[in-house]
Amino acid sequence: MTGEIRVIPLHGIPELEEGDDLGVLLVAAAERVGGFEAGDIVVVAQKAVSKIEGRVVHLSDVEPSPRARELAGDDDPRRLEVILGESREIIRVRRSLVIAETRHGFVCASAGVDASNAKGPETLILLPLDPDASARLLRDRIHELTGVVAGLVVSDSFGRAWRRGTTDVALGVAGLAPLLDLKGQRDSLGYELHATEIAVADEIAGAAELVMGKIEGVPAAIVRGMTAEGDGRGTDLLMPRDRDLFR
Amino acid sequence: MTGEIRVIPLHGIPELEEGDDLGVLLVAAAERVGGFEAGDIVVVAQKAVSKIEGRVVHLSDVEPSPRARELAGDDDPRRLEVILGESREIIRVRRSLVIAETRHGFVCASAGVDASNAKGPETLILLPLDPDASARLLRDRIHELTGVVAGLVVSDSFGRAWRRGTTDVALGVAGLAPLLDLKGQRDSLGYELHATEIAVADEIAGAAELVMGKIEGVPAAIVRGMTAEGDGRGTDLLMPRDRDLFR
Repeated sequence: MTGEIRVIPLHGIPELEEGDDLGVLLVAAAERVGGFEAGDIVVVAQKAVSKIEGRVVHLSDVEPSPRARELAGDDDPRRLEVILGESREIIRVRRSLVIAETRHGFVCASAGVDASNAKGPETLILLPLDPDASARLLRDRIHELTGVVAGLVVSDSFGRAWRRGTTDVALGVAGLAPLLDLKGQRDSLGYELHATEIAVADEIAGAAELVMGKIEGVPAAIVRGMTAEGDGRGTDLLMPRDRDLFR
Repeated sequence: MTGEIRVIPLHGIPELEEGDDLGVLLVAAAERVGGFEAGDIVVVAQKAVSKIEGRVVHLSDVEPSPRARELAGDDDPRRLEVILGESREIIRVRRSLVIAETRHGFVCASAGVDASNAKGPETLILLPLDPDASARLLRDRIHELTGVVAGLVVSDSFGRAWRRGTTDVALGVAGLAPLLDLKGQRDSLGYELHATEIAVADEIAGAAELVMGKIEGVPAAIVRGMTAEGDGRGTDLLMPRDRDLFR
């Protein structure tokens, strides 16, 4: 029988700089609410990870290409140049809105390049180069510091086709299975469930967003009560190209 | 400062029949975990709502059209006929997978028509005719029975473009604003946030799914700790056609 889940914000993490030991800061923040427990899933906002990894670009260092100038419209062509640099493929363009596939295979606005909450109006934050590696590193650091084995999700806010608003999804995952496959399982009436695969890591990221918010600078949360089980990668959540109907 | 959120499954709701008073059953289930509290958001699975509303079709009553036979491939053409009847527009087809826009404007697999966990292998469950009306009715019934004013979300599992797995989203909403608009607000560093609209009702639905599961027959959950604020409709979450890049 499934019990209740708690989603606990981790307050008091300071503005981050490249090279900061985020593991230490997460452990300190968790200790203010009683500390990490075995099975906790720790959700960390992508921007926090990108900052400590130095995935920051200053617009003054960017020389826009002709293609970036063409896409930019009224927007800053240097910003479009950065987006192009992060993109493997441009999926849709409307005015300065670019939906792109990132180097990792994520399909999202601006290839994940973001200005808000950055280190100044002339600064952009890029996605981590390997969010799964980032998740593993943070998870290992928390284990090293506390002895607790937790799951870890690096999350970001993505728009969706056909629906307004963003929801947070999992970019990087360590120590939990991001997909729950119910194929072959039977429901409460004994019928087999078909084609039922639940993106639990995305739902965990979305649940964490509800306490993290965008305004208050809460870059992490604990999701407690679901045991972190199995293993897998954030890239497991990417629809294989040959099954993708929306390119 | 955002506090913690609890996601509490509502166990012990029996298999539902048309005409059942789901409000009474939800209140009884909530009482087993201490009762509803002011500001609670109650998430109810679409299937539970559809069953009490009689949105059930028996395949033996369905005569497939030529178009349904053409789309069906190896699948049951009667199932495709039901999907076509629920669809305003077919968006994509691959073998027997149909992505359709429903009568309400939701874009999802099979126009929301589902067999699993239904009342038998020859039975299909359709989406409620007006999930926002369903949400309002249930919310009013809970208020009538308990005096507590709660938010209410009718949820369903939808696939997504570009990502594997389903996440639960909000079809119907009552007593809360489904979108949180941060435009004009400033983040922790004082920079204005652009184009930041969070689909909180979808994140709430996804969080509830984590305790509801598909196997154990838990058709509802309480999300406690975020105050249900504002008002709006599930259809507010639909991307207006003129802004939709993925038709």
